[in-house]
Amino acid sequence: MERIELKHGGGGRASQDILKLFLKYFDDDILKGLEDASILNITGEIAFTTDSFVIKPRFFPGGDIGKLSICGTVNDLSARGAIPKYISVAFIIEEGFELCELEKIIMSMAETAKGAGVRIVTGDTKVVEKGKADGLYINTSGIGIVKIPGISAHNVKPKDKIIITGTIGDHGISVMAKREGLNLDVDVKSDCAPLNKVVEDLVPLSNQIHAMRDPTRGGLSATLNEIARASHVNMKIYESEIPVKDAVVNACEILGLDILTLANEGKLVIFSSPEVADDVINILKSNPQCKDSKIIGEVYDGEGIVLMETVYGTERIVDMPAGEILPRIC
Amino acid sequence: MERIELKHGGGGRASQDILKLFLKYFDDDILKGLEDASILNITGEIAFTTDSFVIKPRFFPGGDIGKLSICGTVNDLSARGAIPKYISVAFIIEEGFELCELEKIIMSMAETAKGAGVRIVTGDTKVVEKGKADGLYINTSGIGIVKIPGISAHNVKPKDKIIITGTIGDHGISVMAKREGLNLDVDVKSDCAPLNKVVEDLVPLSNQIHAMRDPTRGGLSATLNEIARASHVNMKIYESEIPVKDAVVNACEILGLDILTLANEGKLVIFSSPEVADDVINILKSNPQCKDSKIIGEVYDGEGIVLMETVYGTERIVDMPAGEILPRIC
Repeated sequence: MERIELKHGGGGRASQDILKLFLKYFDDDILKGLEDASILNITGEIAFTTDSFVIKPRFFPGGDIGKLSICGTVNDLSARGAIPKYISVAFIIEEGFELCELEKIIMSMAETAKGAGVRIVTGDTKVVEKGKADGLYINTSGIGIVKIPGISAHNVKPKDKIIITGTIGDHGISVMAKREGLNLDVDVKSDCAPLNKVVEDLVPLSNQIHAMRDPTRGGLSATLNEIARASHVNMKIYESEIPVKDAVVNACEILGLDILTLANEGKLVIFSSPEVADDVINILKSNPQCKDSKIIGEVYDGEGIVLMETVYGTERIVDMPAGEILPRIC
Repeated sequence: MERIELKHGGGGRASQDILKLFLKYFDDDILKGLEDASILNITGEIAFTTDSFVIKPRFFPGGDIGKLSICGTVNDLSARGAIPKYISVAFIIEEGFELCELEKIIMSMAETAKGAGVRIVTGDTKVVEKGKADGLYINTSGIGIVKIPGISAHNVKPKDKIIITGTIGDHGISVMAKREGLNLDVDVKSDCAPLNKVVEDLVPLSNQIHAMRDPTRGGLSATLNEIARASHVNMKIYESEIPVKDAVVNACEILGLDILTLANEGKLVIFSSPEVADDVINILKSNPQCKDSKIIGEVYDGEGIVLMETVYGTERIVDMPAGEILPRIC
């Protein structure tokens, strides 16, 4: 067999063949039990999240849909102060999809999960007719153990510092460039990466960290606005402090995109009390993944407005992005 | 807005509009927090499962894709002896999908979840371009608390009785008939229903129940074969004992389908020690949902072969189904 056929989704003998391909790489004793649900032993507070991945193209500089599907869920758990432990994987595959590409994606998922220390423990595969999907879509859901309690978009306080763990826009611009056939600087690629180790490093400062979020769809604009509204505060960020690669700035100018709305897949926005902000930066910078970490602004009393002081010294409102932005960026 | 547009999946202002529609019906305090991951307090053994739903047509006699997406995950948890507690919902929606249909599906999910006592606590929405999906696909993942420990497809023992909780084939045949424009008897409709209360009733007999599974894709054939192989046993079932509606038998003859391979969405196959099999049946029958429960066979020493004694007194092997069976039945 070289391509996915409808029979692979039927629940019969052909489904078992495709299962073997998954189990070749998703080599986990719990998964191998092939039960309808997997039994896990857990005590305490857990975090639970879900995400579907429909990114186009499926392979892009710095990653692929498989790597992204693991990182996305690992990062949503991490951003709630949880250590990701268990992941489910569910595939919707279009009839005719090439098995060698599926295998590449599975390998990438397995490798990313292993690197992040999460176990793939349950899964599902559906096949739809040719023309009823765009290759394949992946859903991952995840369970983590809460290590930094109280982390919440509703928990940001006036005077908190706003920290970003590195350059912004890399994922959005590299996917967009690949899609449009634009050649970018070689050092611009998706930042797609798991963030759980970054969060683990921050556990000693846990009672001073109030909120974290990975600014994916809608970018920094959406994330800051959502949190400002949820916590009923205003925010001010400084354009000059926001780490961004020159090539990303240039590509945004060519493509007419706002850097602040571009998706990131390996960054965290962290809100900490001002007393520990420098300590947070120091801890972050000890991890090469976060070497460009910066304090980019602070929180004020208010009602949910985000302002940016531009490099020209003027102020503008950073609004919730409107319109299509970049469809299928994750 | 009357139809889904790409901007609804962008993570910006339009995404917030669509969120309001979800929150109107998925009225849960945890979900309303709109965090990237939801925090749940859990102690002990949990069951974790995932399933995507691509059924066609989306509305069928007895249910719809929304109801099915909740029941499917509730039932996978129930079949592991767990009480379902928390569910995630993830939508992949095709551009142009009618909002009034989406609202109907959301209402159906909310109502089913409420009826089953499960909370929808986290979610995700993606939008893909027209022609890149078939209306909408739903993934649900779920977490339950294990109440009957040790339930496993690997745990069936020789002499166990095989019990089915009601008539088989109703879901498969009603979806197929709707798809083919066949008019069936009015009493044939999908059995799509949550099974968690059925499992709760069985808790007093928990140490004598060895395995349970809901025979969905691939039907009774696939379920019995999978469990026979996993537990390294043979099984024998009796055709005359298998509850099935006359109209389902007739439709199978017209459509050339094997009843044993038809999907069910509200039935359990239960393997219990012979001493309590009658007690299991009595408990089941006290629930109207399981009034047609029957012992349909028993387990023998062996290596994974499933036999059926036909109504003519002959024996045939019940094999793992091959080929396409019924695509997109769930």
